[in-house]
Amino acid sequence: MNVFVIGLGLIGGSMALDIKQSNKKAHIMGFDANEAHMNRALEIGFIDEKASPEDVSKADVVIVSIPVNASVKLIPGLLDKVKDNALVFDVGSTKSLICKALEGHEKRRNFLATHPIAGTEFSGPEAAVEGLFRGKTNIVCEVEKTAFKLQEKAFGIFNDLGMRICYMEPKSHDKHIAYVSHLSHISSFMLGKTVIEKEKNERDIFDMAGSGFESTVRLAKSSPEMWQPIFEHNKENVIETLDEYIANLQKFKELMEAGNFDAIYKEMADTNRIKEILKGISIKTS
Amino acid sequence: MNVFVIGLGLIGGSMALDIKQSNKKAHIMGFDANEAHMNRALEIGFIDEKASPEDVSKADVVIVSIPVNASVKLIPGLLDKVKDNALVFDVGSTKSLICKALEGHEKRRNFLATHPIAGTEFSGPEAAVEGLFRGKTNIVCEVEKTAFKLQEKAFGIFNDLGMRICYMEPKSHDKHIAYVSHLSHISSFMLGKTVIEKEKNERDIFDMAGSGFESTVRLAKSSPEMWQPIFEHNKENVIETLDEYIANLQKFKELMEAGNFDAIYKEMADTNRIKEILKGISIKTS
Repeated sequence: MNVFVIGLGLIGGSMALDIKQSNKKAHIMGFDANEAHMNRALEIGFIDEKASPEDVSKADVVIVSIPVNASVKLIPGLLDKVKDNALVFDVGSTKSLICKALEGHEKRRNFLATHPIAGTEFSGPEAAVEGLFRGKTNIVCEVEKTAFKLQEKAFGIFNDLGMRICYMEPKSHDKHIAYVSHLSHISSFMLGKTVIEKEKNERDIFDMAGSGFESTVRLAKSSPEMWQPIFEHNKENVIETLDEYIANLQKFKELMEAGNFDAIYKEMADTNRIKEILKGISIKTS
Repeated sequence: MNVFVIGLGLIGGSMALDIKQSNKKAHIMGFDANEAHMNRALEIGFIDEKASPEDVSKADVVIVSIPVNASVKLIPGLLDKVKDNALVFDVGSTKSLICKALEGHEKRRNFLATHPIAGTEFSGPEAAVEGLFRGKTNIVCEVEKTAFKLQEKAFGIFNDLGMRICYMEPKSHDKHIAYVSHLSHISSFMLGKTVIEKEKNERDIFDMAGSGFESTVRLAKSSPEMWQPIFEHNKENVIETLDEYIANLQKFKELMEAGNFDAIYKEMADTNRIKEILKGISIKTS
């Protein structure tokens, strides 16, 4: 099986690692717009061969793990070139625009839109880790538009990666993922910004930071190359989440200003049930 | 050495565990307003004896690990009752009010104001863990107001716990800790709230949540009993951090609305240097 991974970072690299592990016959070709990333991927060994975009015609499976704006530009042309029985899937964090871009494409049946809910705050080939996808959810959109045999091929790979599959409409995916993923990134980036601005004159401040701050601000280490296009693609939904988040913070602040600490207590106690909800997530990811 | 721990939760319990470990002669008396917590602490074994507040007169060291509003009420009376050579220290997340409450107290020299920057999102005796303080920072305020021999005694204990000491003025502590700790908790609580409100009608949403959301919302599991008084004590500083955080989020939203994604990119790229800052924290906490 010839697997062509386009984009040799955290997600593409981690998939390549696990595919090599579960399928000794897999031959992994890799392409990245960044030549140094290609060389590093070859050194680390998660690709067997550096390739060029034209080599897509040799692939049985094409994994597109690049920023979402690049995917939307690249995939239509890739599909034009792939073999009739080749599977192409993306792994982007927004799904409406890619599905829309491929509507009516002659080879739409060769494509599957997916979003594996897995990752870390790191990026690039060095960020690739084994087992990243084990126990995680892969959201698959418009599955009915993909050829039956290629659905099977994809689910075989996802099964080897240890993923659970959820099916959603692209619009519904983009709306909900804005809450449980995109908003977290903005809250974390802006927390980091607020504290760094303060630190300009008070460098000691970070000596006071503990694991709580570290955890809350972790996502602010994420790659702007990846996240800027996500926010652009999912603009309307993300703005909606930001409106609600800002309103909640504003209300909390007003309760504090009014000295209504009974209400402050209630805000926190009501939100504590996130414990139970996250228990569900922990079971899923363990 | 008779150690009296008042408040048998995460911090008090974890300190008791480590003190027992490093000083086999330590006899730990424990009191908690919640009788069940006292019984559980005895079962777990981090206290040797249940005690009553009056027993404070038998103690060589008194650790006050209760919510900050309760500390301010309790400690003046405790100090009245302790032996002349007894050390009393608190571990609260705000320092101005406790220092002010003890200004001019006859036994001010028996008290040391401390804030160990350590913890988890869990609470109660079950949350106590060994080694919680190893490599962490303990912020000590108004050290010069504590008797020299009792400073020595306290630093001996903190050394056994593996802590690094930082000295700060109470006002400066409260101002900066608002940024690196208190704000993180509010951002996390309000993120949890925003997503839970959405989830009312869309229960599936949490199937889409990954480790990024889990990390960012972790602090929303924290105890309202502990955090409400902290926010009340540190009201002015916390409101200032909230003003800045909300303004940054608002600006991010406006940039999105204006479609200025170059600026969105810059916001994230500028904040990425939190990586370097957090590396410093990791070294410190490892």
